Amino acid sequence: MVGKYLEQVRTKAPLIHNITNYVTVNDVANVLLACGGSPIMSDEPADIIDITSICNGLNINIGTLNVRTIEAMYAAGEKSNELNHAVLLDPVGAGASKLRTDTALGLIEKIHFDVIRGNISEIKTLALGNGTTKGVDADMADAVTDENLDQAVAFVKGYAAQSGSVIAITGAIDLISDGKICYVVHNGRPEMGRITGTGCQLSGMMTAFLAANPDDICGAATAAVCTMGLAGEIAYDYMQQGDGNATYRNRIIDAIYNMTPEMLEKGAKYEVR
Amino acid sequence: MVGKYLEQVRTKAPLIHNITNYVTVNDVANVLLACGGSPIMSDEPADIIDITSICNGLNINIGTLNVRTIEAMYAAGEKSNELNHAVLLDPVGAGASKLRTDTALGLIEKIHFDVIRGNISEIKTLALGNGTTKGVDADMADAVTDENLDQAVAFVKGYAAQSGSVIAITGAIDLISDGKICYVVHNGRPEMGRITGTGCQLSGMMTAFLAANPDDICGAATAAVCTMGLAGEIAYDYMQQGDGNATYRNRIIDAIYNMTPEMLEKGAKYEVR
Amino acid sequence: MVGKYLEQVRTKAPLIHNITNYVTVNDVANVLLACGGSPIMSDEPADIIDITSICNGLNINIGTLNVRTIEAMYAAGEKSNELNHAVLLDPVGAGASKLRTDTALGLIEKIHFDVIRGNISEIKTLALGNGTTKGVDADMADAVTDENLDQAVAFVKGYAAQSGSVIAITGAIDLISDGKICYVVHNGRPEMGRITGTGCQLSGMMTAFLAANPDDICGAATAAVCTMGLAGEIAYDYMQQGDGNATYRNRIIDAIYNMTPEMLEKGAKYEVR
Repeated sequence: MVGKYLEQVRTKAPLIHNITNYVTVNDVANVLLACGGSPIMSDEPADIIDITSICNGLNINIGTLNVRTIEAMYAAGEKSNELNHAVLLDPVGAGASKLRTDTALGLIEKIHFDVIRGNISEIKTLALGNGTTKGVDADMADAVTDENLDQAVAFVKGYAAQSGSVIAITGAIDLISDGKICYVVHNGRPEMGRITGTGCQLSGMMTAFLAANPDDICGAATAAVCTMGLAGEIAYDYMQQGDGNATYRNRIIDAIYNMTPEMLEKGAKYEVR
Repeated sequence: MVGKYLEQVRTKAPLIHNITNYVTVNDVANVLLACGGSPIMSDEPADIIDITSICNGLNINIGTLNVRTIEAMYAAGEKSNELNHAVLLDPVGAGASKLRTDTALGLIEKIHFDVIRGNISEIKTLALGNGTTKGVDADMADAVTDENLDQAVAFVKGYAAQSGSVIAITGAIDLISDGKICYVVHNGRPEMGRITGTGCQLSGMMTAFLAANPDDICGAATAAVCTMGLAGEIAYDYMQQGDGNATYRNRIIDAIYNMTPEMLEKGAKYEVR
Repeated sequence: MVGKYLEQVRTKAPLIHNITNYVTVNDVANVLLACGGSPIMSDEPADIIDITSICNGLNINIGTLNVRTIEAMYAAGEKSNELNHAVLLDPVGAGASKLRTDTALGLIEKIHFDVIRGNISEIKTLALGNGTTKGVDADMADAVTDENLDQAVAFVKGYAAQSGSVIAITGAIDLISDGKICYVVHNGRPEMGRITGTGCQLSGMMTAFLAANPDDICGAATAAVCTMGLAGEIAYDYMQQGDGNATYRNRIIDAIYNMTPEMLEKGAKYEVR
């Protein structure tokens, strides 16, 4: 299934508007180019409507947010909804500060997101803030493991159904749900956590997958997760003595650049729950 | 001809002030160091006059502009003109949004730019906004090709003469004109378009070439274009199985770092029209 | 001595809050991950108190400062002092503009910095601004060399004693002093100066060393300086034909990622004055 989603990205070459943090922005741009999309960045309220209007999708990432860029996030999100563009939220650091939590929750209230992608801790923060309690309790760990997988699947399904967005929780095990089904992805390498911004990169790339595959948001998000994880596995195989996280970062982007739909189809490891 | 311009950069090591987008800024800094210049970045109005005053050239790039940095662009540009420093404009996204188009046109009205460097679409937007119509019509394609080369050369000469700046249009074929002659450069690789910011990098490096070669702005700009394109060719020859756009990005900067004036002289492919 | 400080970073994995320039921020993040710490970036006044409160250390770097981020620097610094977190100042460009000089001096007046790390020129600017004149005169060169080492050691000891911070001056020869003793470090390679941001990277990493080794700030700062310099030496040994500053940048981060306490202990070259 997943290979065809990558093929659509390569064929349609969607232009993605990113309002994203300045830490990982260059990698987000190069990953978008690697997968077959095109990036454009703009975070100035006076610029945002024109830019988002010529794009096919919008990626909002709240890392290094500030009062000016928050205003841009609302304006771009509302315009993209109006234009029926694919819109993704990456709630970086939700739960770590009141401003980030409030911004993520405020955006979710005003804007329809096709996908919200974060780690388990960020998504739990949003679910609690949105009043979801099903599956969220003090005992739920901050990592999805084989042991708590059933509980985590129930949680992600519940929050997806309640929020109306596809929810993607990424980590050692990745979960993607539209509220009815849940894809469980087993691609990836633990060393990816030693590179800054693999999550941000995935959010940028995923927006391109959403824009190119509007008829199956949940499948497209899953295909993007598999692409990133498989690229991490392929890149790891290229690592040589003396290589570390900087080289690994480059090799992951390279692996996305060289990935064919056939490679993705063959290498993707996912199940449906 | 072009080798001596690189030699001057290496000898004079110009310090270049960059007001540039946060997407590609790290690569701009490393390319400036690779070619023999030095970078400094500052975009705060209260900081800009002091910083630009100690530099040898100014590179204004309007990608990810905002109201604060636009103010800085005007102030730094006017100060640099007063000090007779080399000043370059990279009108990223002119034509894509009203703010970007207006900012580029406003800057051109207030500030003398030694060089304006952009792609054909951005330069056409500026030419039309400045009232140039010669050679610009609805039929003119958004890429310079062997087929429309004569028309494109006429256009770039016309806009250079009208604007009083050297105009550099980069793409598969690059054109650099001062209004009288036009250099046509054939260096480069199509894969360079799959890396974010090769244009931004070229603008930063070109400003160092201008600062180090003030007596021949058009020749210096051409030498910078040849350097970037030749580096793209050399880097491509180093690509191995599994390498992609992230590694290619690094190899292009590496190739600039290792390029000698002799290599540039031998590898540059340009003609005069 | 120095190996154990790296071991503590790996064991404690300190979370470091960085208010740093957008030029080199991605490298700062990857270096922090390479050494065993974790990075978080936030420069918005409304976000800063929450973020710095969950961290173990704060790295303030004044490159690309603006009026909004300056406000954040003060707020985060004061909060970190209150919480007794490790706090480092990297006064990028002090002496190059009035805003940068005033900001660095203003921060030093209000906030206690465990370490101030800069090049000789920046540190001289601060010392003069703080009224230190001992060892600072018009004849003192802008580089620490074997010839002026005695004078430079006297200067750094004097400013450290007067300021109450450990002072780290980095360059071809590095000096780290708490006012009583001075470590003189001879690791490193001159080619590191051809990469943008090795100083910024060191400041980020050093903050992790300080946070993980609160009982010996001067030793921890020295260990970080040795780690960076040794990584530059190891990375240089991996350089192959055609490699330049972009690849060297990645290899340095890789070398930090792969460095063991034993390698650091063996490779560190320092003496006490």
